[in-house]
Amino acid sequence: MDIAARVYNHKWKIDPIIRSLLDTDFYKLLMAQSVFRNKPDTVVRFSLINRAHSVRLAELIDEGELREQLDYARSLRLTRGESTWLRGNTFYGKRQMFRPDFMEWFENFQLPAYHLEKKDGQYELTFEGKWYEAMMWEIPALAILMELRSRAVLNRMGRFDLQILYARAMTRIWEKIEALRELPGLKIADFGTRRRHGFLWQDWTVQAMIEGLGDAAQGGAFTGTSNCLIAMRRDLEAVGTNAHELPMVYAALAKNDEELRQAPYRVLADWHEEHDGNLRIILPDTFGTKGFLEHAPDWLAGWTGIRLDSGDPVEGAETAISWWKSRGEDPHDKLIIFSDGLDVAEMAALHHRFAGRVKVSFGWGTLLTNDFRGLAPNDSLAPFSLVCKAVSADGHPTVKLSDNPEKSTGPAEEIDRYRRVFETGAQTARPVIV
Amino acid sequence: MDIAARVYNHKWKIDPIIRSLLDTDFYKLLMAQSVFRNKPDTVVRFSLINRAHSVRLAELIDEGELREQLDYARSLRLTRGESTWLRGNTFYGKRQMFRPDFMEWFENFQLPAYHLEKKDGQYELTFEGKWYEAMMWEIPALAILMELRSRAVLNRMGRFDLQILYARAMTRIWEKIEALRELPGLKIADFGTRRRHGFLWQDWTVQAMIEGLGDAAQGGAFTGTSNCLIAMRRDLEAVGTNAHELPMVYAALAKNDEELRQAPYRVLADWHEEHDGNLRIILPDTFGTKGFLEHAPDWLAGWTGIRLDSGDPVEGAETAISWWKSRGEDPHDKLIIFSDGLDVAEMAALHHRFAGRVKVSFGWGTLLTNDFRGLAPNDSLAPFSLVCKAVSADGHPTVKLSDNPEKSTGPAEEIDRYRRVFETGAQTARPVIV
Repeated sequence: MDIAARVYNHKWKIDPIIRSLLDTDFYKLLMAQSVFRNKPDTVVRFSLINRAHSVRLAELIDEGELREQLDYARSLRLTRGESTWLRGNTFYGKRQMFRPDFMEWFENFQLPAYHLEKKDGQYELTFEGKWYEAMMWEIPALAILMELRSRAVLNRMGRFDLQILYARAMTRIWEKIEALRELPGLKIADFGTRRRHGFLWQDWTVQAMIEGLGDAAQGGAFTGTSNCLIAMRRDLEAVGTNAHELPMVYAALAKNDEELRQAPYRVLADWHEEHDGNLRIILPDTFGTKGFLEHAPDWLAGWTGIRLDSGDPVEGAETAISWWKSRGEDPHDKLIIFSDGLDVAEMAALHHRFAGRVKVSFGWGTLLTNDFRGLAPNDSLAPFSLVCKAVSADGHPTVKLSDNPEKSTGPAEEIDRYRRVFETGAQTARPVIV
Repeated sequence: MDIAARVYNHKWKIDPIIRSLLDTDFYKLLMAQSVFRNKPDTVVRFSLINRAHSVRLAELIDEGELREQLDYARSLRLTRGESTWLRGNTFYGKRQMFRPDFMEWFENFQLPAYHLEKKDGQYELTFEGKWYEAMMWEIPALAILMELRSRAVLNRMGRFDLQILYARAMTRIWEKIEALRELPGLKIADFGTRRRHGFLWQDWTVQAMIEGLGDAAQGGAFTGTSNCLIAMRRDLEAVGTNAHELPMVYAALAKNDEELRQAPYRVLADWHEEHDGNLRIILPDTFGTKGFLEHAPDWLAGWTGIRLDSGDPVEGAETAISWWKSRGEDPHDKLIIFSDGLDVAEMAALHHRFAGRVKVSFGWGTLLTNDFRGLAPNDSLAPFSLVCKAVSADGHPTVKLSDNPEKSTGPAEEIDRYRRVFETGAQTARPVIV
């Protein structure tokens, strides 16, 4: 027995879930840098919302433990090695992706205060402050809640049950990866940080992807992970571009309907100035893909690709292909990234349908890093739909419509206004699984 | 890092497969004691035979490593704790199962010399000596060859592949056990020592059985293990009675056809004197079940049960039930132990057909402790049919017919003679899987 190791382990009061500020999605850093330059004074409030009311987090998770984890995350700073990696690494083929002024800020950054309350069996967890600071909470907050929920269930299980649980989960992931191996020319990345079962498990699934599909840098199908810490440690590409929070906040800041209508394009105009190549990926669904594309300026059709994150993915992809054609672009040169609640069968179907017509790529999230469905009594380890969204900007409420009315958020009258301004039109509801 | 542990581990030249003389089947000890009393001077030669010619053991396994393992096994002696367990424990409800003179001999026992040659890609491994000494090699020799073959394949696999391999194997076993849990009143034991994947794996499958089915001592379905070492360490029943080698050797010693005809009953008469209750289990198939039962003396019908180890198990069980009825016995009081190459579907079918008509019990062997079918490239970890049999006694060749002509062993002319003497009649060939 290694007494020193055991004594050392006992010195830790808690087993931290977030052990590094890089344990977050790469696009948060890209977006933070953009906000740091373009909207440095905007104050945004983020709120963690559990869409799965049946998972009563406040009954499962001890408030003291939750605070310990959040407080521990607040104690973190970028280490020297992490900073070196961000400054010195190549991202999307580009050196010095992060500007010196941003890096200087980030090196001194700590997560800001949080506000935590219990209500109706749920936790109300909010973060308010400068946008580029408060936004850094999104991924750690989600990962902490998800993993504390996993731990609450795992704590009730015996040593043997745990062994079987992980044997089954590993077997399941590996069989999925074996199925993916059958798709010629596949490109796929890990997008599963936010709703992962746990850090170690995400790390394991990433290793399984490397092992089973091969790192794309060596000609394999696995193009990388959105998780910066895992990318750094496993020497992978850190991937991701931008997310809904940019158009949501820009829209909330609009002073009238015309500014509102232009807000999503304003976001991408700012992005256009900063980034090129594979970082120019349109996320069109914040207020409805159809209206967004119809009214989009021509320079947007020149962008590299599009990410489809809600609605029927086949319909979305066909819409994008038609749109490119209508703007005189060749879809063969364009990239479609599918990223909405995917699993293997759906990816195979999309791959078969669209590979050869456009470049296809997948961002595989929850069902890579948290597919424990059916593996614990009462399905108590099944993933659920937890989100952390910007809810207001400088005091104005934000709205998200997406291509699925089940995913819309914001005050009802504002939703109506947005639907009118963006000519969102009729939408089909789809169940939100993960 | 625990330097002391690492240094200690490095002192071992080999990682021994057999670490204890108790790492053997319980019935070997019962039979050895019987032989020790009834046939102390008989000299028997045992030979290890690989029925699966396609598994070329001499090409897979290094001869030096094999000799190291065999030599290490020869260095073992019963430890004080092991001796205490054998002397002090209750087996089948009986104290002092092992007589003092036998224990005295066993406490000083070491495995005798072996003879090893390579031939046609196989190892010829033989053991000759006093019957009760040479017979002790059977299980260690089989377990060593099986595990060295596993190791030869595992050594070529990476860390990740190994993890997936065992995750899949664990998941498979656990799903089998979950299926077994659906059988009300099930009784089942581990009989898998001889053809196990490895010692640690057998030990794990036994723990899975305890966990999934419950120890029969606490009302569960798992009645114990044939492996004495695991029984001792896990505080389980050690189970097993007698095997084909007794009638095979008694028969080989017969001076004429009449003595030959009586030999199998002579074995059981000796056994009858020594044991009662659940140890009185008939193994009827050595020279054909049908003839054996037809000519059996009436006192045998009073025995507790029968073990069916070859042939069609349904036919064998129906034959046994008819036989008990014809001798005025109530089959409801009788036990049938099925033990031939079983897996879950077959056990479920047998259970459904016979539970309620007789007492049913299963001895689950290779497909509990070595079901790695399909889990490694080229199915290189699939179990195969390795046996270690008595081939001669005092210079006379032995014969085994069993209820499956594919399993018969011995010189052709002797097989013909045995078939005539025992009125074996027509037999149906069944593939030998494990």
